[in-house]
Amino acid sequence: MEEVALAIETMAVRGAPLIGVFAGYGLALAAKGRGDCAAAHDRLARTRPTAINLWRGLDAVRAAAPDPDRMLAAARAYDEREVAAAEAIGVHGMPLLGRGARILTHCNAGWLAVQDWGTALAPVYRAARAGLAPFVYVSETRPRLQGARLTTWELREEGVGHALITDSAAPHLIQRGLVDLVLTGADRIAANGDTANKIGTYARALAARAHGVPFYVATPLSTIDRSTPTGEEIPIEERSPDEVLIVEGMDDSGASVRVRIAPAGTAALNPAFDVTPHALITGLITEVGIVPATAAGIDQAFGRCHR
Amino acid sequence: MEEVALAIETMAVRGAPLIGVFAGYGLALAAKGRGDCAAAHDRLARTRPTAINLWRGLDAVRAAAPDPDRMLAAARAYDEREVAAAEAIGVHGMPLLGRGARILTHCNAGWLAVQDWGTALAPVYRAARAGLAPFVYVSETRPRLQGARLTTWELREEGVGHALITDSAAPHLIQRGLVDLVLTGADRIAANGDTANKIGTYARALAARAHGVPFYVATPLSTIDRSTPTGEEIPIEERSPDEVLIVEGMDDSGASVRVRIAPAGTAALNPAFDVTPHALITGLITEVGIVPATAAGIDQAFGRCHR
Repeated sequence: MEEVALAIETMAVRGAPLIGVFAGYGLALAAKGRGDCAAAHDRLARTRPTAINLWRGLDAVRAAAPDPDRMLAAARAYDEREVAAAEAIGVHGMPLLGRGARILTHCNAGWLAVQDWGTALAPVYRAARAGLAPFVYVSETRPRLQGARLTTWELREEGVGHALITDSAAPHLIQRGLVDLVLTGADRIAANGDTANKIGTYARALAARAHGVPFYVATPLSTIDRSTPTGEEIPIEERSPDEVLIVEGMDDSGASVRVRIAPAGTAALNPAFDVTPHALITGLITEVGIVPATAAGIDQAFGRCHR
Repeated sequence: MEEVALAIETMAVRGAPLIGVFAGYGLALAAKGRGDCAAAHDRLARTRPTAINLWRGLDAVRAAAPDPDRMLAAARAYDEREVAAAEAIGVHGMPLLGRGARILTHCNAGWLAVQDWGTALAPVYRAARAGLAPFVYVSETRPRLQGARLTTWELREEGVGHALITDSAAPHLIQRGLVDLVLTGADRIAANGDTANKIGTYARALAARAHGVPFYVATPLSTIDRSTPTGEEIPIEERSPDEVLIVEGMDDSGASVRVRIAPAGTAALNPAFDVTPHALITGLITEVGIVPATAAGIDQAFGRCHR
């Protein structure tokens, strides 16, 4: 269980849906090992503050306590529901992509963030398999470089054309008319549709609006938190300044190397997420279909949901 | 002269005003060395396409051709005019900064970009010397990290409080109300006030407008190109994909180390600048005062100028 907690804290496992699944298994493991379930729940719940999925996974497994086998079965069932949701997001989102659509994404919202399909990349993978030849602009996603390190690799594995860009280049490409659609995941969506996602998402939403480019958030319902009224109440994780000050990469042999990019002693701030106001979001692509990023749209989605 | 050209191309010397000064000296050096002045001019003019200052410096020195001593004197005179302009920008810009003003800047527009004062940082340094305790949020400025590497160092040398952030965090800090003023430099300003500056500037301007934060561009008149009608006609330099794919930093001993941040073979795009539409710019801080970022404002500035 402690290994699970550390993996989430250090982002060895990351992606909002996946940390919910992983935390659920962690709690089931604690029960299997005859650990203190309440303490395990608290430990896992404190790993990261923004993605609501963490609590969703824990709640699903805790509901089956105290029997360890039932808890593990609950973790597996939660896992399978998230996979099914990701697959359905791909089905509902694919019609947004015309032939040769040029998509801008941010961070990693592919199958390294939600098993098998991902959220934002699920429609892209489905379009690619249908021969529609989508093309993805991948922003590197400082500080942890999930775009550069994970999304590029996934897209190559899937045979999807792509180009890596700096985070700063994303609004410029939108301005130049090179982007047909912005597609991102989410870490927590408030009751009114305001969406917390990886830091940098907000700049893309502003640019998309300025140039009339659709901006969609692909999300399972497990990421929507109707108990958080608006984006202002979403807790934004502040991570270590070292993530900004030190870049991890590979040397010529492929070994991991860390380099400092600022003078020793430089102070840094590292907010991990930002909030995109719902008014900038064209729609939410969920497992029950595309709905407006509004309280009414969210109510409609939950009304269709029989989970 | 070739060393000067390579220094500009590789960005060993960078910052729009400074590359104009440096190119001017390069042309004078070519004349001193009895080189082919026309060929030297062409070589230097081809180093970088966006900052109009490059041609300003070359033109100032070419006007004194063919006498090498007169050309060197012209280069020195051009240099001194740029330093004086930077100092005056500080004088005109300082009143925008109240006590404890929190400034967001981008890239490096300090004395490593314009000798002695800088452009965007000139008002900050003047405010700091006046005891007004400004605080600067420094965005790291991928891909070449001028913010992380140069601006942080300059601010420390000047004793100005600062914090490094990722480029993506800048709009988020504006949204959270932590920024009183955005101050950047410029690489070329069109006749209508549209401003090309380091990639990422546009996102800051969009966020500043969305939250009612003033966005000023600090610029000598040498950066304004009245022969370029609008931002659409400003050539945007595309630099090597390796600048995106490979990060240069320091190891524990302070030695320079390069690390790859994406899988080998990943394609990347690297536009070095973006264009901020004049409508998003609160004003231009020039050596003759603050003027609107409009054709009329620019005409007014040149009308005051007796260079």
